[in-house]
Amino acid sequence: MNSLLLSALKCKNHGRPPVWIMRQAGRYMPEYRKLREKQSLWHLFHTPELAAQVTLLPIDILNVDAAILFSDILVVAEALGGTVHFPEGKSPHIEMGPQFLFQPEVLHYVPETIRLLKPQLKVPLIGFCGGPFTVASYILEEIKKSIYKDAQSLHELLEKITTATIAYLHMQIEAGVDAIQIFDSWANLLTHEEFHQFSYPYLKKILASLNIPTILFCRGSCILAEDLATLNPTCISFDSHKPLAHMRKTIQPPIAVQGNLDPYLLYAPKQVIIQKTQELLRSMQSDPGFIVNLGHGIFPDIPVDHVKCFVDQVLEFSPSVCL
Amino acid sequence: MNSLLLSALKCKNHGRPPVWIMRQAGRYMPEYRKLREKQSLWHLFHTPELAAQVTLLPIDILNVDAAILFSDILVVAEALGGTVHFPEGKSPHIEMGPQFLFQPEVLHYVPETIRLLKPQLKVPLIGFCGGPFTVASYILEEIKKSIYKDAQSLHELLEKITTATIAYLHMQIEAGVDAIQIFDSWANLLTHEEFHQFSYPYLKKILASLNIPTILFCRGSCILAEDLATLNPTCISFDSHKPLAHMRKTIQPPIAVQGNLDPYLLYAPKQVIIQKTQELLRSMQSDPGFIVNLGHGIFPDIPVDHVKCFVDQVLEFSPSVCL
Repeated sequence: MNSLLLSALKCKNHGRPPVWIMRQAGRYMPEYRKLREKQSLWHLFHTPELAAQVTLLPIDILNVDAAILFSDILVVAEALGGTVHFPEGKSPHIEMGPQFLFQPEVLHYVPETIRLLKPQLKVPLIGFCGGPFTVASYILEEIKKSIYKDAQSLHELLEKITTATIAYLHMQIEAGVDAIQIFDSWANLLTHEEFHQFSYPYLKKILASLNIPTILFCRGSCILAEDLATLNPTCISFDSHKPLAHMRKTIQPPIAVQGNLDPYLLYAPKQVIIQKTQELLRSMQSDPGFIVNLGHGIFPDIPVDHVKCFVDQVLEFSPSVCL
Repeated sequence: MNSLLLSALKCKNHGRPPVWIMRQAGRYMPEYRKLREKQSLWHLFHTPELAAQVTLLPIDILNVDAAILFSDILVVAEALGGTVHFPEGKSPHIEMGPQFLFQPEVLHYVPETIRLLKPQLKVPLIGFCGGPFTVASYILEEIKKSIYKDAQSLHELLEKITTATIAYLHMQIEAGVDAIQIFDSWANLLTHEEFHQFSYPYLKKILASLNIPTILFCRGSCILAEDLATLNPTCISFDSHKPLAHMRKTIQPPIAVQGNLDPYLLYAPKQVIIQKTQELLRSMQSDPGFIVNLGHGIFPDIPVDHVKCFVDQVLEFSPSVCL
């Protein structure tokens, strides 16, 4: 098994860093678009054979060092009695039932997908979930207003989401994922004080419940870095607002760092992609806990050969210092 | 004349800090909505008597310590040959002409508005403009793609916007404004490196050309603070991502600081508004260069009595240390 990702998460990597891409199985791939012509997103998520097939696409095509489960952070809302709609080209929305009773069996298709995948994979499999605040943001349309108008109800909702998320992650772990990434994508909606009230304590509960490597992704990670470090994740995934080598001065081993090429860069001509990827690689050269990724998910209209160009730069990188 | 704002900009304020609100003349005011029933936004901007009337509304109703010209950052695009549309409830869009020739006379209504206003005002009048990158963001729909695909053309556009902006600000200054705020609202789209390529040098040119007090507002100011300080603005306006007292440790006098109550707070019950405003005031107590404002513009559906409650807290504040 390719152990680069797990070594980097332990801050014990030598040689080139591992690389994977957030949303690496997605619309930018012709193979994915072809599958989506015949199947709805909902159907792909809920059918283990198809979800596994999509998860494998970027491994075969790009040769990246990790697979990430093809699923959605909103499946937890579904297990809490909601119906999630994924309208084409728009953000998903949720209709919740009258109660928020967690029914873990609703999520059976996720461990089934993982069990199908594991024997086929020669790279680690990353499971994932949304941060409770981010999941709540989809459930409540006007979440920032509710913070000031009815903080108590919001806390009750966040508790329920957190409990369900922990159970859901343990289902993933038992089924065989090698690491977990938590996406608290909307943490940047919050002021610093609100982050500590409505996101931090719930991330803390989740992280404390896990005994496998964890990667913590928040939009706004460059601002929140020191706060995130106190949650003791195995790794922090950084957005593109600051150079990663700069953030590395704040966040030191044993915490690994992931990121943070600007996702827009992949629109550039290949020579620019090569130059900027080399700059990132050199700036983090000899770092034992560095995982190459984008600052956030890849856009659906990036040419595949540009993505390959980026990944290939990492795969072919020879760190002169570490050899 | 109420000199609190100008004293704070010099870091020479004693007693309570001055207060004004970004987008203080806007839809949250019934008087403004009444005017807008009969007139388009475009007509209000372009008719000096009406623009002056709107500018005065918050001074009369809220008793704030500064007026800000009622206008739009996109009038510069108009003077560069564009036609700006303000569709109801949507963001404005621009149709540009074939050339980008700056015609300053197109903007005659702005100095006329200022000349009408000055004799009627007992508080300083703030003029303003958009940061060149932000104005360019409206002209080019896909600005982040163009950064990588055609950086040279973008720089040419930014140069033209900068030249026009400097001329436009000098028109405002000659007509009598007391300070200028620069809104580089979309600076947070950029990585740190891109900010230094596509925003910083143009802000620098503008700031270097001005000889009156300047307030620099960028979304992302909490991340960019140290870079913004090297531009030597008179004041930096901060968003709500970090407590202002925290940012004050990084940015010290002679640079003044403005902000940064979370705009969502104004949805809260009055007791919460009072508590949080008091917390901000106490945290910045005895600071000689502090201007109270929100982290960004006020929302259109905030109740007016909530806004009054916020402003009144500042007007009635007695800083025990400074008396």
